[in-house]
Amino acid sequence: MPGNTFGELFRITTGGVSHGPGYAVIIDGCPPGMPLSVDDLLPDLRRRRPGQSKIVTQRQEEDMPEIWSGVFEGLTDGTPITILFRNTDQRSQDYRDIKDKYRPGHADFTFDAKYGLRDYRGGGRSSARETICRVAAGAVAKKFLARKGIRVLGYVKQVGDVVADIPHPAAVTLAQVEATPVRCPDAEAAARMIALIEEVRKDQDSIGGISELVAVGVPAGLGEPVFDKLKADLAKALLSLPAVTAFEYGAGFAVATARGSTNNDVFIRKDEHIGTLTNRHGGMLGGISSGEPIVCRVAVKPTSSLPRPQPTVTRDGEPTEIATRGRHDPCLLPRFVPMGEAMMALVLVDHWLRWRAQCGDTVIA
Amino acid sequence: MPGNTFGELFRITTGGVSHGPGYAVIIDGCPPGMPLSVDDLLPDLRRRRPGQSKIVTQRQEEDMPEIWSGVFEGLTDGTPITILFRNTDQRSQDYRDIKDKYRPGHADFTFDAKYGLRDYRGGGRSSARETICRVAAGAVAKKFLARKGIRVLGYVKQVGDVVADIPHPAAVTLAQVEATPVRCPDAEAAARMIALIEEVRKDQDSIGGISELVAVGVPAGLGEPVFDKLKADLAKALLSLPAVTAFEYGAGFAVATARGSTNNDVFIRKDEHIGTLTNRHGGMLGGISSGEPIVCRVAVKPTSSLPRPQPTVTRDGEPTEIATRGRHDPCLLPRFVPMGEAMMALVLVDHWLRWRAQCGDTVIA
Amino acid sequence: MPGNTFGELFRITTGGVSHGPGYAVIIDGCPPGMPLSVDDLLPDLRRRRPGQSKIVTQRQEEDMPEIWSGVFEGLTDGTPITILFRNTDQRSQDYRDIKDKYRPGHADFTFDAKYGLRDYRGGGRSSARETICRVAAGAVAKKFLARKGIRVLGYVKQVGDVVADIPHPAAVTLAQVEATPVRCPDAEAAARMIALIEEVRKDQDSIGGISELVAVGVPAGLGEPVFDKLKADLAKALLSLPAVTAFEYGAGFAVATARGSTNNDVFIRKDEHIGTLTNRHGGMLGGISSGEPIVCRVAVKPTSSLPRPQPTVTRDGEPTEIATRGRHDPCLLPRFVPMGEAMMALVLVDHWLRWRAQCGDTVIA
Amino acid sequence: MPGNTFGELFRITTGGVSHGPGYAVIIDGCPPGMPLSVDDLLPDLRRRRPGQSKIVTQRQEEDMPEIWSGVFEGLTDGTPITILFRNTDQRSQDYRDIKDKYRPGHADFTFDAKYGLRDYRGGGRSSARETICRVAAGAVAKKFLARKGIRVLGYVKQVGDVVADIPHPAAVTLAQVEATPVRCPDAEAAARMIALIEEVRKDQDSIGGISELVAVGVPAGLGEPVFDKLKADLAKALLSLPAVTAFEYGAGFAVATARGSTNNDVFIRKDEHIGTLTNRHGGMLGGISSGEPIVCRVAVKPTSSLPRPQPTVTRDGEPTEIATRGRHDPCLLPRFVPMGEAMMALVLVDHWLRWRAQCGDTVIA
Repeated sequence: MPGNTFGELFRITTGGVSHGPGYAVIIDGCPPGMPLSVDDLLPDLRRRRPGQSKIVTQRQEEDMPEIWSGVFEGLTDGTPITILFRNTDQRSQDYRDIKDKYRPGHADFTFDAKYGLRDYRGGGRSSARETICRVAAGAVAKKFLARKGIRVLGYVKQVGDVVADIPHPAAVTLAQVEATPVRCPDAEAAARMIALIEEVRKDQDSIGGISELVAVGVPAGLGEPVFDKLKADLAKALLSLPAVTAFEYGAGFAVATARGSTNNDVFIRKDEHIGTLTNRHGGMLGGISSGEPIVCRVAVKPTSSLPRPQPTVTRDGEPTEIATRGRHDPCLLPRFVPMGEAMMALVLVDHWLRWRAQCGDTVIA
Repeated sequence: MPGNTFGELFRITTGGVSHGPGYAVIIDGCPPGMPLSVDDLLPDLRRRRPGQSKIVTQRQEEDMPEIWSGVFEGLTDGTPITILFRNTDQRSQDYRDIKDKYRPGHADFTFDAKYGLRDYRGGGRSSARETICRVAAGAVAKKFLARKGIRVLGYVKQVGDVVADIPHPAAVTLAQVEATPVRCPDAEAAARMIALIEEVRKDQDSIGGISELVAVGVPAGLGEPVFDKLKADLAKALLSLPAVTAFEYGAGFAVATARGSTNNDVFIRKDEHIGTLTNRHGGMLGGISSGEPIVCRVAVKPTSSLPRPQPTVTRDGEPTEIATRGRHDPCLLPRFVPMGEAMMALVLVDHWLRWRAQCGDTVIA
Repeated sequence: MPGNTFGELFRITTGGVSHGPGYAVIIDGCPPGMPLSVDDLLPDLRRRRPGQSKIVTQRQEEDMPEIWSGVFEGLTDGTPITILFRNTDQRSQDYRDIKDKYRPGHADFTFDAKYGLRDYRGGGRSSARETICRVAAGAVAKKFLARKGIRVLGYVKQVGDVVADIPHPAAVTLAQVEATPVRCPDAEAAARMIALIEEVRKDQDSIGGISELVAVGVPAGLGEPVFDKLKADLAKALLSLPAVTAFEYGAGFAVATARGSTNNDVFIRKDEHIGTLTNRHGGMLGGISSGEPIVCRVAVKPTSSLPRPQPTVTRDGEPTEIATRGRHDPCLLPRFVPMGEAMMALVLVDHWLRWRAQCGDTVIA
Repeated sequence: MPGNTFGELFRITTGGVSHGPGYAVIIDGCPPGMPLSVDDLLPDLRRRRPGQSKIVTQRQEEDMPEIWSGVFEGLTDGTPITILFRNTDQRSQDYRDIKDKYRPGHADFTFDAKYGLRDYRGGGRSSARETICRVAAGAVAKKFLARKGIRVLGYVKQVGDVVADIPHPAAVTLAQVEATPVRCPDAEAAARMIALIEEVRKDQDSIGGISELVAVGVPAGLGEPVFDKLKADLAKALLSLPAVTAFEYGAGFAVATARGSTNNDVFIRKDEHIGTLTNRHGGMLGGISSGEPIVCRVAVKPTSSLPRPQPTVTRDGEPTEIATRGRHDPCLLPRFVPMGEAMMALVLVDHWLRWRAQCGDTVIA
């Protein structure tokens, strides 16, 4: 099946390109009776928006959602929620060079290889502007989760070699994250990250980083054994975002040097339920949520588009150079946070509904 | 939808538990006319089999596949390939303790939380024995890929702090991998890995590691933009395997400290086609294969089951201890390699068929 | 999964309601490189449009599609085709009564039962205006099929007790169908159908009928054995249209009184290929196309909305009356034809792509 | 996606051929905690079994199911239910002729056209023996439905020109259906049907018929608007069965001659809920269940295999004759009933689970 739909029971389908009239997202399967309005979408859209601070791209996009269906008299009505975004600040002329040259690190070449042609204006369908649809849908998902006592929050854990010290991921608050434009709740590290991003921008370069994502309040029992493990669906969801090159949860790659005797988390009784003393398992055992906070991390590569000239080839394979005149982020991490949260929220709602479908008669732990 | 099916066009569904009569896998969508027999399945099944060497579990499982349908007069006939495995060496008595105690690091607790009951014999549905189905299906997938010039190969990159030196992943051969029981093509590192695993086993403990997986010959153009990016589907496929806690491709987590100017791979002309000078992008750009080798890595945690006593709780939350009397692997990595290859192969066949469906009129690069 | 998506490889997702801002359809999986413009969509949209003749509803809807993505420089580019329709002539006041009364034959009651609330304006999501999305997508599908030598055509076979005489379904032409506003290629029957519809309208009533749908040029080999038989997918596609209450293909219900010796079609050689002497099997054997014309029929019930008062109950179960002040069709059949064609075309493209995915190496008969 | 899987949330996948070792069905998504054993499967399997009476085929198939997984200590455990059937009475020699000749009315030719080769032994994958898997899965589905107060029952409505008089479909009992080998609850008609079938058999011929299927106790609210209407999914489910050529629900094809004023069912209050005075809508409005009994009918063609010689062609197109030496049913209807019930039950469970997933917070009517 084609790849523009995500999710099974809470399912989004997106269409649109960066330099056409706009984008549409159809959210299917949202339970009825939930209050919803444009105001619920705006906060995360603003966290994603270009031009929100000096350390992100200075493109100005209005990003005002129009809800065309699925909400009636202020409540979701169970039918598909259709949301539109119109493109405004496009500056197509910025992208003339791309037509015949392959931008390093971008999908220009692979789109041509796959389809035989491509919309070369600003990346077309491969533009990260598509994530505006995901962030809007993620806001709907987060609202549903909140009603079930589940909160999803992300932040920037690392930019370049600046690593934040966040000993208690589940205790981080939205206010702490939003306190700095870089969305790192460790204020001291945030300052150094901002300085690094500034330096990189002046150098006409870009820098990568790591975002950590946390879900608290997830009941034990979400996720399917075997193929649709919760960890597997989170990995797919996050790797489906542009520029993400790696995913880990809990101890992640550090398990490579761990021994079983120290890596296993010990089960203990916690008040009325069973939990674990530590959380190296990142809230998932056997691919199913354990009731402990779900904690994962993803790596985001440095922006591929650079103002400085980079060697490349033309469609015909002739050597040439390209410098991106468009306005791009020197570091993708600050704007990535709401995107990562959105994908995590979409997966969690989907599995919550799948759990209710099959196990709705079970008393969840 | 329930989670026991994987893939869209080349789709496998598995059923069975470790201590029931056996397993069944139904492979749907295999193109007709391909020679196939049990002999095609045996090599990878043997690489996965317990008891194959002194550094893996000494359980003896016959693992002889029975093909019940889908092959007629030696050729696949386009209808579902049904393969069965009977369980033999079960030793149910080894698992008595598990009934009322939650094994650390296992899915016992989360299955109970989800379903309200569980088959406690040897992990039941959460047993890694289910991967026998995947390895058999993966062998079919690999055979199809080979006919299209695509080869999938994995190996052990790291065990504990022993890291292999493998400068050219695409040049590693199956013979090099199979030369040592630990499946590490760097002979010197392999020796140290084996020594480490022996040491860990004597210590009644277990150790984690990293496996690297490589696909060569993949044409540019496989993978879908947006949600079903090739990188996303590979991440899901590999995270769906038991004990996998992390995935990265190309530069992976190292992009966090990289700058765009050095992380981007430069496009160049290579004979008749376009490629890149380096392969930090791990063979995928915009989620679509670039024609360069696809390279990814996954972390596999140390076996959770340990012969030494570990603290835990009973179903009622009472503190207790558990020691696993079953025979388990001190290190999962050697047997993981064919499982990882299988999942990679399944994803590649699926995307190859999806490519042919939509873009079969395009001349692939 | 939610029910607003249709198809596997050529997949459409629709959103929108009759009295909101408009509708969106996202067509995913269309092969790249096919010329496409708004002009390709208009003919079928006009055949579906209200107000097109005196025997259909006199509502005036502009129904002008806006293509937001998926077409670049006049060619499909392989990415999702997003098409929007704005609602214009809504007259919301016509529907005040519906808020608290259940219209007989409509989905008002069942929507309330399912969702606990409903958009009562003009049927909301259950409005047949949603088929505008299907007809647009169907036009894209038909264009693709035409490039593969396949033509889909429907017409009105029966209205009330007026039955058309159409001895050679595969020989009917679009010009014959469009020659009369009732879309019946038997001119004499068409005249009587029109007179009957006029009579029914004057009587403030409505009348049902039967539409026959034909696909010619379908190669042998489309359709999947077992569950996704071509006949099964056609049945689902057509029953998913509003007001359709029955489906049959080939001899259909007449097989009940047939004997095997007369019902079986005899295989014969036809030039270079094998075909059948007769076509009681309606072009499908074992759920797979045989190469003979695919012929099926569906029954469409009389419009449920009537200008005359009908007894019903309120949401609280109190007896009341309702008369529909909106402008409705006295007979749905003339406007049904392009809807039926669209669904048939969508199924055929989907199976054509599925065939290419799995059997692209087979030489199709 | 390939066509050997059915359902979204209650999903079955089948593999196997008539003349291989046997069949496997994997039932995925069954809620946990439901008592289940082989004894629950046997009654419907016996109703489907060949040789059960003198008016069906005299093949003797044991049809004893083996449950390999998904049931633990007598309860479903939420993991896939794997059921196997071994083939026994195969008599391969009966089918020698089929290898090079195309049986009229069968899938021999279309399988060759699609796949380029086929398992010619007894129809291979196209054999109706595959329905054994569906009937077993249907028995599981029926058991789940019964726990929710829903009952599915089918019977034979017509054989040839013998039409049963069944004024109250919802009142028919299983005992009435099983009272005669032809499964027609109208005893007088049943006798004439049996006589007709005997006559046809003596004539080395076969005869078609109609089966009516009824579900009572279905709450209002099941089914999805737009594409996955309950009527659409029932149509697909039933048309996916071999030999079914037509489907209708409620008034069905009779709506063609009906007027809206008489076809609409009037809403009335019934005790505590809202229902309709009549049930021409067959229990579904807008594709969603109304709470009234769901009533549908399907036509089943006369058995294509005949003992008498029929003209046909060889694979090379040469004219020849074929007479089926296998033992076949002179009328498929008696054995069809449990197959039809199974498909209806599978659809209802699936939609019940889908309803609970999305609308579990809604109070169902």
